[in-house]
Amino acid sequence: MAYRHQIQYYETDQMGVVHHSNYIRWMEEARIYYMGQVGLDYIKMEENSLISPVHNIECKYIKPSRFGESIDIYMKLEEFKGVKIKLYYEMKNLQDEIICIARSETCFVDKDMKPIRLKKDYPHIYDIMMKIKQ
Amino acid sequence: MAYRHQIQYYETDQMGVVHHSNYIRWMEEARIYYMGQVGLDYIKMEENSLISPVHNIECKYIKPSRFGESIDIYMKLEEFKGVKIKLYYEMKNLQDEIICIARSETCFVDKDMKPIRLKKDYPHIYDIMMKIKQ
Amino acid sequence: MAYRHQIQYYETDQMGVVHHSNYIRWMEEARIYYMGQVGLDYIKMEENSLISPVHNIECKYIKPSRFGESIDIYMKLEEFKGVKIKLYYEMKNLQDEIICIARSETCFVDKDMKPIRLKKDYPHIYDIMMKIKQ
Amino acid sequence: MAYRHQIQYYETDQMGVVHHSNYIRWMEEARIYYMGQVGLDYIKMEENSLISPVHNIECKYIKPSRFGESIDIYMKLEEFKGVKIKLYYEMKNLQDEIICIARSETCFVDKDMKPIRLKKDYPHIYDIMMKIKQ
Repeated sequence: MAYRHQIQYYETDQMGVVHHSNYIRWMEEARIYYMGQVGLDYIKMEENSLISPVHNIECKYIKPSRFGESIDIYMKLEEFKGVKIKLYYEMKNLQDEIICIARSETCFVDKDMKPIRLKKDYPHIYDIMMKIKQ
Repeated sequence: MAYRHQIQYYETDQMGVVHHSNYIRWMEEARIYYMGQVGLDYIKMEENSLISPVHNIECKYIKPSRFGESIDIYMKLEEFKGVKIKLYYEMKNLQDEIICIARSETCFVDKDMKPIRLKKDYPHIYDIMMKIKQ
Repeated sequence: MAYRHQIQYYETDQMGVVHHSNYIRWMEEARIYYMGQVGLDYIKMEENSLISPVHNIECKYIKPSRFGESIDIYMKLEEFKGVKIKLYYEMKNLQDEIICIARSETCFVDKDMKPIRLKKDYPHIYDIMMKIKQ
Repeated sequence: MAYRHQIQYYETDQMGVVHHSNYIRWMEEARIYYMGQVGLDYIKMEENSLISPVHNIECKYIKPSRFGESIDIYMKLEEFKGVKIKLYYEMKNLQDEIICIARSETCFVDKDMKPIRLKKDYPHIYDIMMKIKQ
């Protein structure tokens, strides 16, 4: 089941549609949701000083979205070789129209912002990531 | 000289005016600016594990404000007896019309969110606060 | 059933808790949700050029809230005599602790921002509001 | 002179750095600023029902940025053949380190979201855009 975001009034701008910066936030919502679905709990990870900064974002806005609409966000792992996590997102309104396609690149770093090789240091997370990939 | 905020497009909503939640953010901008003016550097304070959470906000919206406008925010200390810091804000557009009056109540706490008695633990900050008051 | 808000990562600040401006947004979420529950559809109202600006906000922050938590927001009508709508909000975490109590004052205005007397011009909305009050 | 953004406290997240969604907003700030510098006033354009939605965003985050820092945003026109406006952004901190490079693709549309051929319908804007390009 897709992650669903309910569009809020405060997400609109004076163009009468959702401000484009909010889609970047919805990507984060979806990312955290789907990570949770496969057993990667962001809160626990951060408690263990494992954080996940964003390195790259691409976002193609196809149709505007509006206050009151619900948006379903689909996500899949495009690439993961051990460090960089490349994710692909598709956002659809309830008329099943694609309103946005997007990509993000994240990794895991420790407290000092040093990238982590999951395979070596967190093999159980690595294993989970590899499962998503398949 | 007043703290000036330049209204951004992303601060508007579909009513065509600034979304009311942003005024709360402008209060913070002004608070940090004026604190800096009297020598209280938030960044250095946080490095010393001294943080300043908000306990209370009141905000009276008098006139709408719009994208492209500049807003001058005046602030004064209304009450300070050693722990709670009560501040008063007046926001004016460049036509000198009051668009919003607001109040905040903050205090300083340590890392464990325990309130700090400035007079005893940080006498130099206490002295600065007392000077603002006069 | 209370309106539930799931706290997002992007709602936090470097204090490690939710930034206080977001509670103002949650009040709006709850307001629109509960209005919808009694039959007042914001989208349809705005299509009819009936908008509902906020005139006053009060927000008392009692306990911090954190990323990953769910917050239940209860709302009730405190006062309504025909124009001003005074609402009261209580926000609780899932441990049933009150984290915030708040108030808002809104009204309905037409396209030119002129306040509307609901009883005369929109009697069906007036009737709905009166029912909430009881 | 570059457009300068002063980082606000509310732009940080619990990672202790600026939340990545804000860079998208800074791009908009810079875009509107530089457009204004060459004589394209967004406010007047919107009054004439000429709006400028974003079609594409790319954002490469190179170094984190923090509360209290000032960021200089440089922008240039990468491509413009009459409809799509491709802009390139470089963001630097005051240590002259590049913290982010980004691209946006916008166009101008009328009230019904129909793309506008600037050359034909708004030749003075077209001429301005062509001048930026050179």
